[in-house]
Amino acid sequence: MNWPLHGSNPKYLYESLDVLKPGHVLDFSVNLNPFGPPPAIKEHWGSWLDHIVDYPDPKGERLVELIAAKERLSNDAVLLGNGGAELFTLLGQLLAKQKIIIVQPTFTEYEKICRANGCIVSFFQLSEESGWTQDTDLLLEQIKEADALFLCHPNNPTGTAYPQSVLLEILAACQEHDCFFIVDEAFEDFLEERRTLAFCVKEYSRLIVVRSLTKMYAIAGLRLGFLLASPEVVARLRSFQPYWAVNSLALLAGECCLQEEGYARKTRRWVAKERLRIHEALRSMGYILSASQVNFYLLKDPLLADQLPLLTFLLAKGIVPRHTMNYPGLDGRWLRFGVRQAKENDVLLEALGKWKQH
Amino acid sequence: MNWPLHGSNPKYLYESLDVLKPGHVLDFSVNLNPFGPPPAIKEHWGSWLDHIVDYPDPKGERLVELIAAKERLSNDAVLLGNGGAELFTLLGQLLAKQKIIIVQPTFTEYEKICRANGCIVSFFQLSEESGWTQDTDLLLEQIKEADALFLCHPNNPTGTAYPQSVLLEILAACQEHDCFFIVDEAFEDFLEERRTLAFCVKEYSRLIVVRSLTKMYAIAGLRLGFLLASPEVVARLRSFQPYWAVNSLALLAGECCLQEEGYARKTRRWVAKERLRIHEALRSMGYILSASQVNFYLLKDPLLADQLPLLTFLLAKGIVPRHTMNYPGLDGRWLRFGVRQAKENDVLLEALGKWKQH
Repeated sequence: MNWPLHGSNPKYLYESLDVLKPGHVLDFSVNLNPFGPPPAIKEHWGSWLDHIVDYPDPKGERLVELIAAKERLSNDAVLLGNGGAELFTLLGQLLAKQKIIIVQPTFTEYEKICRANGCIVSFFQLSEESGWTQDTDLLLEQIKEADALFLCHPNNPTGTAYPQSVLLEILAACQEHDCFFIVDEAFEDFLEERRTLAFCVKEYSRLIVVRSLTKMYAIAGLRLGFLLASPEVVARLRSFQPYWAVNSLALLAGECCLQEEGYARKTRRWVAKERLRIHEALRSMGYILSASQVNFYLLKDPLLADQLPLLTFLLAKGIVPRHTMNYPGLDGRWLRFGVRQAKENDVLLEALGKWKQH
Repeated sequence: MNWPLHGSNPKYLYESLDVLKPGHVLDFSVNLNPFGPPPAIKEHWGSWLDHIVDYPDPKGERLVELIAAKERLSNDAVLLGNGGAELFTLLGQLLAKQKIIIVQPTFTEYEKICRANGCIVSFFQLSEESGWTQDTDLLLEQIKEADALFLCHPNNPTGTAYPQSVLLEILAACQEHDCFFIVDEAFEDFLEERRTLAFCVKEYSRLIVVRSLTKMYAIAGLRLGFLLASPEVVARLRSFQPYWAVNSLALLAGECCLQEEGYARKTRRWVAKERLRIHEALRSMGYILSASQVNFYLLKDPLLADQLPLLTFLLAKGIVPRHTMNYPGLDGRWLRFGVRQAKENDVLLEALGKWKQH
């Protein structure tokens, strides 16, 4: 079977499974802010038309300055990218042929891009039994022999997170053993108790923090990510990057969103409450869930080994989960759902209720 | 001096030369359609806001199908890119450490990206005396020893073009000697007498044609390019490319523009006439011009070796040429200008008239 590599764009999942796509679908396979972009984007949209004509600012100076000021870093510690995915391809080139550890199960692009660059890839496999946050002693051992470690934190697709103290312990080990610590914080701003490592970038030359504005601000179509690292690392990564890599709209939207901290704060709180509500309901139906701290979660019906029948059942009803066939250690035994608006989540609850009764 | 690498974004040129930037400037350093995007883009703009939320179609299926149909190729012979610049970085990875010929003076990204990938780069240097279209016998010899040849056609920054017969001769030599022939046709649709090699892609496995929609349709801010090559080459290049490389707006605008062939045709004709008008006037003032066939041209005042005084004079008046300091073989002895709207070109003519009298 030719499974789609990622969520979103449901038509590819329907095609893979040969299920007829209903006219209207609810896509739970994306992990974006359920309320869409902040209203300010809509207000500016008309005036942004003029900016599509000319080339974007190749340095993205205004956006870089905003990010640097917010993170208390110098401008040359910030690299903008055509989405986080582009930043990972640049990291792949930086790490070509080196020894890489990936904490699994996780976002699949790290492995893909490391292999495309001839890296020697090993996994630190998190276990379902530990709630995907087991003890990291063995990981600290592995770091001694590695050139780079990829950690998605909070983790996609589980939504789980480590305490800050564990992250700092991993960071110290990486710095000591000259191993890049690449932390993908794409969903960090959905954590109620924030836990970014950005404040360590100045002091730790081996730390690379990858961030996103497209999840919290629901502008994934525009493609925008950034990373924070030492000026030396930023300069090397930039040498692999196309000129004008970030389009004008992404630059404008990024500048706009960075001034919408209130919108992020409200979303964060709302999502945490709503996730609790959904999870209580789902647990009472007999489903098992990952202990997510963010805007998506894993779910399984414990009566099924492979969740394919449930996946197909939901797709036929126009409800689109993210399959987990290409996550090492999940292999289809779970489904991932984004937290959507309350009414939409109710549609999901109803369908999952029906599944249990059918 | 820290010269900007490309045209557009005039503030960087003003900063480099330490000239005060007037409140209003006319930017002749860009090579875009002087009439801006086709009206259809403006009509659709409001409805496109909804498409920024979700991830773009990673395959860009609808746009790929439109391009493939137009060029009479299969879908798998088309690769979309985040601007031509991204496609060149992918080509750089494909050609890593190989022997490359670049026909100079030309777009500077080819050399930059080849060097970043450890290629062995040599130049086939076109001469001013030949009007930058000299005999290619020596080039045909060089091809025998090379892995790839970059030709920008029509050429940026000179605007000059070879007859189709010469292109086909070069193509045959490349195919015979297993040398990739990479033709950058970014401005091909500005030629009154069209001369694309796209129709040869099916037959010649060593041919790679790079195209653009952002110049003719003035959507450079959105970033969109594509290339046409054998399915094998397309698949290899795609393996280096970030997922979701082309943003949703670029996909929508691309689909829209491909239905605006009439707009392109009108622009082509108008630009050819207007270029003639400007060139007659400039020649009568004593300036020397390249025999451009497209929407930009080189100009020099023969009384100056280095055109820096003229460049500074124009910048102070709010007229922004493209410097040629980083074009091998030009080295500042020329300035490049885009053909803009008639009234704007008149402002340029007036300023260049004053320069001759001052």
